[in-house]
Amino acid sequence: MAVSPRVETPPPLHWDGAALHVLDQTRLPAEEEVLTLTGAADTAAAIRRLAVRGAPLIGVAAAYGLAMEVARTPTAEALERGAALLAGARPTARNLGWAVERVLAAALAAGPDALAPAAVAAAEAIEREDVAASAALARHGADALESVLEPGPVTVMTHCNSGALAASGRGTGLGVIAELADRRPVHVLACEARPLLQGARLTVWELRRLGIEHSLLVDAAAAGLIRSGAVQAVVTGLDRVAANGDVANKVGTYGLALAAAAAGIPFVAAGPSSSIDLRLPSGDGIEIEEREAAEVLAGASTVAGTACRNPAFDVTPAELVWALVTERGAARPVTADAVARVA
Amino acid sequence: MAVSPRVETPPPLHWDGAALHVLDQTRLPAEEEVLTLTGAADTAAAIRRLAVRGAPLIGVAAAYGLAMEVARTPTAEALERGAALLAGARPTARNLGWAVERVLAAALAAGPDALAPAAVAAAEAIEREDVAASAALARHGADALESVLEPGPVTVMTHCNSGALAASGRGTGLGVIAELADRRPVHVLACEARPLLQGARLTVWELRRLGIEHSLLVDAAAAGLIRSGAVQAVVTGLDRVAANGDVANKVGTYGLALAAAAAGIPFVAAGPSSSIDLRLPSGDGIEIEEREAAEVLAGASTVAGTACRNPAFDVTPAELVWALVTERGAARPVTADAVARVA
Repeated sequence: MAVSPRVETPPPLHWDGAALHVLDQTRLPAEEEVLTLTGAADTAAAIRRLAVRGAPLIGVAAAYGLAMEVARTPTAEALERGAALLAGARPTARNLGWAVERVLAAALAAGPDALAPAAVAAAEAIEREDVAASAALARHGADALESVLEPGPVTVMTHCNSGALAASGRGTGLGVIAELADRRPVHVLACEARPLLQGARLTVWELRRLGIEHSLLVDAAAAGLIRSGAVQAVVTGLDRVAANGDVANKVGTYGLALAAAAAGIPFVAAGPSSSIDLRLPSGDGIEIEEREAAEVLAGASTVAGTACRNPAFDVTPAELVWALVTERGAARPVTADAVARVA
Repeated sequence: MAVSPRVETPPPLHWDGAALHVLDQTRLPAEEEVLTLTGAADTAAAIRRLAVRGAPLIGVAAAYGLAMEVARTPTAEALERGAALLAGARPTARNLGWAVERVLAAALAAGPDALAPAAVAAAEAIEREDVAASAALARHGADALESVLEPGPVTVMTHCNSGALAASGRGTGLGVIAELADRRPVHVLACEARPLLQGARLTVWELRRLGIEHSLLVDAAAAGLIRSGAVQAVVTGLDRVAANGDVANKVGTYGLALAAAAAGIPFVAAGPSSSIDLRLPSGDGIEIEEREAAEVLAGASTVAGTACRNPAFDVTPAELVWALVTERGAARPVTADAVARVA
């Protein structure tokens, strides 16, 4: 439980004006390998194989992917083909389609002679806004928690990864936690997030980089630790939010929300307003990506060829979300009106 | 989701009248290695290193270990020494001390000329009664579920391992599921049970052997799948029950119980009546074993030396347990009176 040292590392995503450099998140924490992406195909492939992940970061990467594609081949056809390729890279995250649509619309509006500069400008704007949004949402989330937490050190549980490896700046859920840690001592309990271990691999890597005290746990231990009184708040990112406030996020989030509600501690879901889909009445309409069995089998030491269920996300109903936080504020309680205010 | 073939395997425990043959559970599912045990020392060692595990199965193995020891050296001194060795092999399993005491008392009561046959007879009786208890418990659990499930195929979720590798016959929680599968088509969703993966390694191995359809999932996927309507019942074993019906079981059980209650589906906890501790008023008095970080770190691909929380069990409050099942019946609802009736 010692304080970890602050560690210097390459940034998760860096646009140099012509190419996009991203840390290959599948290699962390063992190796800090930077991938250089140059078009729609390699960016879509990097998103598909989770080298770049986290809903907001996927949006930023896809925007640059499309901009690079149209800079290389400045035609409406290349633009449309690239947009389709990128938008289809992953099904659940809302930011992906939103970011691709925005770059596409900006380029088309600029006309055939200005496709590339308009696309690049749109992608750069998306990243700039995402950095500002992360900072604002971190403040709103920390303010909401400060309004109810007793003074003094706190233990905050998080799941998966919602930090700088998932969004610009310091991230979404982990950005809220980092902001809180600027204000008071915070110990983070990081759930490992099987099967791909983004909590163990990425969140622990980030917490060490940020110099925030932390402990790792298996996902199955989360609910019992919350019930035992060891945790004062649960804070996660989010992948998609319906108009009623139902939240889709990394599989396992719903279990944390249930345990937090049963223990009477706040559960905060934080993400950019672009994750809110007001056309979707409830979480029942959110498509849950089912990923391949190989992901589960890889770490399970089980009988070869065993069938698996491997949903990548789950849906937490609005009534279990204590606060829904975006760059526009904290919706609390999470009613449809409050959601619309922060969307 | 195809039907798995019924597979012939060595039995988890087999007494041939002179020696005890047990599957080495630390090698499953990769290797089905049978250990032949012949006395107190090797039986105690097998229990200590978890080659034989599961509270009821440990009791049976220890009883035979003591009987074999005294058959080899039929003296009161060998009997006492063997009993002390076996009773100390693991500190927490309740059945272990109970079974050793019973064999010891039976042998001593028979007198110096009949130590060995009396000890063997007591061990055989313990195994016979454990098989009968498992069968009775399975019937009570399946009867309770049948009384509320709609006709037709059902999907049942389970956690960790509570089958023939944990108790005689077909086990406790998994025994209830196997009994239900004799009566109607059952698909089992098996949670892997990180960090030691008893679900992935042992329950999947058992389900294949039993010819029961199954899929494996990471523990974090359990609550969301329950909420999605994919599961009609949750059935687990149990490690210890308080007088008010609070249940301690493998870490992760509480989260399944919360999700089952929220979805309005039954959560059944099944185990021998000897697991109920009527002197313990509630689950608050159950000490939760915290195991070493190395167990979590081994499978987490995280930064070396990361601190971990690793509780081995959690406590599910009685109000979330739909039925508490022992060989004496099903307590439903789980009130103190009902618990006392099945204890």
